[in-house]
Amino acid sequence: MNYRLHCFAQSGNAYKAALMLNLCKADWQPVLVDYFKGEHKTERFLALNETGEVPVLETGSTKLSQSGVILDFLAQETGLFGGGNERERREILRWILFDNHKFTSYLATLRFLRFFAKDADKAVDKFLETKTLAALKIADQRLTENDYITGKQVTIADISMSGYVYFLDEARIDIAKFPALGRWRERMQQLPGWGHPYDIMPKS
Amino acid sequence: MNYRLHCFAQSGNAYKAALMLNLCKADWQPVLVDYFKGEHKTERFLALNETGEVPVLETGSTKLSQSGVILDFLAQETGLFGGGNERERREILRWILFDNHKFTSYLATLRFLRFFAKDADKAVDKFLETKTLAALKIADQRLTENDYITGKQVTIADISMSGYVYFLDEARIDIAKFPALGRWRERMQQLPGWGHPYDIMPKS
Repeated sequence: MNYRLHCFAQSGNAYKAALMLNLCKADWQPVLVDYFKGEHKTERFLALNETGEVPVLETGSTKLSQSGVILDFLAQETGLFGGGNERERREILRWILFDNHKFTSYLATLRFLRFFAKDADKAVDKFLETKTLAALKIADQRLTENDYITGKQVTIADISMSGYVYFLDEARIDIAKFPALGRWRERMQQLPGWGHPYDIMPKS
Repeated sequence: MNYRLHCFAQSGNAYKAALMLNLCKADWQPVLVDYFKGEHKTERFLALNETGEVPVLETGSTKLSQSGVILDFLAQETGLFGGGNERERREILRWILFDNHKFTSYLATLRFLRFFAKDADKAVDKFLETKTLAALKIADQRLTENDYITGKQVTIADISMSGYVYFLDEARIDIAKFPALGRWRERMQQLPGWGHPYDIMPKS
């Protein structure tokens, strides 16, 4: 199976899909969406995904958006990282939802404002920082008890939550304050096929 | 099957699960989590859900948190509102993720700040309003083309996205600006078993 991933290297959401494809040793090519030139707002891209967001995965006539859907699809296609039964599948979904609600809304936006926009209102910055630190604390606590988010095995929940943790420096968040999260991040880097977002996708 | 739903009426996230239980005509009882007295931060509640959030669904020895997981579980248990095949299931998941990322992070927080906290910084209010209106516009566009979020049938994607739309007045968002969303909201109210959050759950 051949996959085309519409993405750009600065997107942690795109990275979730790119990392999964790499860890599955899939045959895939990135297709640059030049976000900083506004390509995600063009009619051509909106026809691919009406929300104007990367990632979009294409394979044959299948087009999928939302990183969580893409991860679920690839886990089914490859039989990898998807959990062994319904209980595990639900626990994985739980943390993918946590990631989409908390890390993507708050951490990703904080990093965007601090690293790219650089003109955020101080109160907005503080609001997002408070929400981000609370979410990181929950994940850190979880990873104190388990090697991976849902237990002893790497799953797509870990891959989803990897989206923005390699951009924590750009968000000016000190990972040393979340030691279990830091050890988990290093553990993820040891997986065969792992690559940093800036190394496996083209930059906008 | 008998279900216990840990919830409080002001929570749109809890409402997603309560509405599903009602629409499925399930045998269920609400269990009040007295949020405004801080009950969600007690050790007893954190043992149910480490993120300190409602809803939590209990049935037999099964305990589930995250509204999207609960909706997926109930759709499987009852055979209702879950979509007929893998393609439909993925499209449903796509909009549940959209709801969790956009409506829950932005609309729900905006409504909380405007209706309960009442002391939000103006820049934070504006930040959340901008994100909320963009998300409502995408949903409105989608509902211009389809009676329900994923097509002609009500699914758990509609039930998930119902979470905060009955609190739009409390968020001081004028639904008249999103006419297709307004018609969809009325369509949802016609479903047998539908009830307003304040009528089907106990208030904190």
